[in-house]
Amino acid sequence: MFELSRESTVPLVEQVTEGITRLVHDGQLATGARLPSIRKLARLVQASPFTIVDAYDRLVARGLIEARAGRGFFVVARRASLTPLTAIEALPDPGSDVMALARVCLSDQDLIAPGSGFLPESWLLEATLASTLRRLSRSRRPQAWLCCPPQGILELREQIVTRLVQRGIPASPAHIVTTYGSSHAFDLLGRLLLSPGDAVLVEDPGYFVLFEQLRTHHVHLISVPRRAEGPDLEALEAACRAHRPRAFFMQTLLHNPTGWNAEASNCHRVLSLAEQYGFAVVEDDVYGDLHEGAAVRLAQIDGLKHVIYLGSYSKLIGPALRVGYIAADTDLIGRIIERKVLSVLSGSALLECFVSEVLDSGRYNRHVQQVRMRLARLRREVRRSLEATGLEFESAVGEGIFLWGRAPEGVSVDDLARRARTQSILLAKGSLFSPSRDPSQWLRFNVAHSTSPTLLQFLAQSLRQAA
Amino acid sequence: MFELSRESTVPLVEQVTEGITRLVHDGQLATGARLPSIRKLARLVQASPFTIVDAYDRLVARGLIEARAGRGFFVVARRASLTPLTAIEALPDPGSDVMALARVCLSDQDLIAPGSGFLPESWLLEATLASTLRRLSRSRRPQAWLCCPPQGILELREQIVTRLVQRGIPASPAHIVTTYGSSHAFDLLGRLLLSPGDAVLVEDPGYFVLFEQLRTHHVHLISVPRRAEGPDLEALEAACRAHRPRAFFMQTLLHNPTGWNAEASNCHRVLSLAEQYGFAVVEDDVYGDLHEGAAVRLAQIDGLKHVIYLGSYSKLIGPALRVGYIAADTDLIGRIIERKVLSVLSGSALLECFVSEVLDSGRYNRHVQQVRMRLARLRREVRRSLEATGLEFESAVGEGIFLWGRAPEGVSVDDLARRARTQSILLAKGSLFSPSRDPSQWLRFNVAHSTSPTLLQFLAQSLRQAA
Repeated sequence: MFELSRESTVPLVEQVTEGITRLVHDGQLATGARLPSIRKLARLVQASPFTIVDAYDRLVARGLIEARAGRGFFVVARRASLTPLTAIEALPDPGSDVMALARVCLSDQDLIAPGSGFLPESWLLEATLASTLRRLSRSRRPQAWLCCPPQGILELREQIVTRLVQRGIPASPAHIVTTYGSSHAFDLLGRLLLSPGDAVLVEDPGYFVLFEQLRTHHVHLISVPRRAEGPDLEALEAACRAHRPRAFFMQTLLHNPTGWNAEASNCHRVLSLAEQYGFAVVEDDVYGDLHEGAAVRLAQIDGLKHVIYLGSYSKLIGPALRVGYIAADTDLIGRIIERKVLSVLSGSALLECFVSEVLDSGRYNRHVQQVRMRLARLRREVRRSLEATGLEFESAVGEGIFLWGRAPEGVSVDDLARRARTQSILLAKGSLFSPSRDPSQWLRFNVAHSTSPTLLQFLAQSLRQAA
Repeated sequence: MFELSRESTVPLVEQVTEGITRLVHDGQLATGARLPSIRKLARLVQASPFTIVDAYDRLVARGLIEARAGRGFFVVARRASLTPLTAIEALPDPGSDVMALARVCLSDQDLIAPGSGFLPESWLLEATLASTLRRLSRSRRPQAWLCCPPQGILELREQIVTRLVQRGIPASPAHIVTTYGSSHAFDLLGRLLLSPGDAVLVEDPGYFVLFEQLRTHHVHLISVPRRAEGPDLEALEAACRAHRPRAFFMQTLLHNPTGWNAEASNCHRVLSLAEQYGFAVVEDDVYGDLHEGAAVRLAQIDGLKHVIYLGSYSKLIGPALRVGYIAADTDLIGRIIERKVLSVLSGSALLECFVSEVLDSGRYNRHVQQVRMRLARLRREVRRSLEATGLEFESAVGEGIFLWGRAPEGVSVDDLARRARTQSILLAKGSLFSPSRDPSQWLRFNVAHSTSPTLLQFLAQSLRQAA
């Protein structure tokens, strides 16, 4: 079934858990299939029966398998649960055909979703176990649920600040306002900063839901090409001269869709241009927790003087949680709170207490550490497998969730994505990530969703045929 | 201390709980004060010691008092917890001075808040007990938290539909989209329906946060006077002819700030005008659960053909919860979902599961029943006390949270509110509830926050001096 590595730093129980999860997700263990008995699997993979009992327990807790009394363990029918969010992220035409999306999502088809922007369900569970709810029910006074200041509960803002300070970003709770995830943060910033007709700089490629959100403010989107080392500085300066932009939305680290990290010198130059041409820099750091080691962020260099920084706990706790934040100068925070009051009145105390509990318990840090390790292990392997299908990659392997791969010239990526869809494979084609929507040879792959043999076979076959 | 009524339908334990809560809120039992021993209080109010033990237990659970080992029960230091939301609702100039508000809110002053739009904390607890969290942690598969379709989780939409159908509003889950409370619903509807320069009809008096929200869309607000029987129909028709409005925002039942219910014939005429002049009718029914007996709603007469209906669970479960919904024609729902995706991506599965659990357990219905009874008991009493201070009331006692009272001619309500503020009394003056902000002799009183002797004394004295 799978082999365990005794040299690995990953505990055996986790290797078993992950091995079975993959077999289920790749369809090699179908819905309703019976798993090997505990003794048999222990023999097969040469592990102790206790390890298998522990692994099966975790899989039951995750809802992947179920125990039937006296008969053993069986693969549970999978729901299309994450599909809606998966699909939004990889939507061919976001914002214009949501009902069609809803129909796809409500159908119970089993998607393979290398195009998804989210981690798979089984990767998110650790931090959202029911035990957090139970701890929460014990640890808070009942009134905690009844009050949520528009700026966000103080305890959570303090925890956010502690993390920012660890990143070298000087902040106090007064510099923070909570949001319903990063989308809500973008929405509030759009309301605050933008007027119809404004020029707004975005990275190309960049996060396409952001493009659609900015368009609702009737602004003029200007593409700044994104390179491995950061935004193309010549293009950025030319755009500043030509358009006098109001704002620049940039993802310094683990950039979506490329996975690249901007270099410190590049960041520095971006800030100089911001000062010279007087535009706001919005730094989207939603993947920042996945970055290991020393990193330079715009907010760190600038110290929240001109940079508006945003983060989210949805990416790693769960995309349906919806808690994020904006960190900025206190004057700006005051004006953002105003927009927040007039759009949603306040955050939700229950949600904010939940995140605060996850952070406080140390669960979040442990979880981040685990996800980083899993991603690091998978990235090389997935990249090799994708290269073997005929895709090309330019930069170093890097970090984070995404790999940015190029299909050979002559292959129509549009056709590829369309045919993939008929086989329940959701690809994120490069044109999505450009404000111009121009055809592109690039595709974004989510490392955690790209291990399926069905996917690799489909790509190898399609690329071979096109060549 | 207080007397118990043996004829009342209210259980003795609740009478004791409420009696002590009032003494604490009115300052007769100050922070740190020691409560009578169980035996002593039992003797004083002529109840069984078991009743007192039970009542003290509830008060401890609510965080109002605490037990100190071997020393008895003490009043806990009160946090300014609900103050932020209280204050937003009664803000002198909403949306323009949020930082000043935040300062007021973060100071730990003990407000008496007859001007608040919310029920007191102690009225909300029943439905938000930690036990709901514990049940939730047991009853859901862990993945439930990981997915929230942009339309809202199906289970909750089904529960909402059941309640709408009980009100005679024909709906299916496809007619519902969830929101982060009614403010978010107004925000989404504004984005959907309104363009800069549009004429929009609102009730005068009406909900002032709505006015501010609509103004962010750069529309032209047209006042339609609100009478006890509903909107002034002649004024409504004249406004239609003169302005060709895009939408009319109306609260049929338990209207904020007056507490009035529109009559069926008035509703019918509003709908005829909507059809004739082609404007959308948005029916805000956030207080609808507090209405007892048969009621006619616009959505019931119209069957969601032209009416967009909205409700909320924040009012009765807790204002910091943030779960509401919009019910409308399925085409409209599709377009609202689009706006929702581009503003917040999706709702929060945790929040929606929480509300679904509260509804499913029957707790919500029991809670609504209790709040109705408490309000009904208080309304007459509060109205009599307020009349005794010199305020005048026009209509029948009615239902719900609000009483709409008039200060005698010659009294400056602005001055009254200002002086009240210096004594930590938050009054909601009538001018707030008009888009014109014209001076008004009216004031809105929240029944549940208007029992304080300090308040009554302040009003009596101030009105006497002014006369």
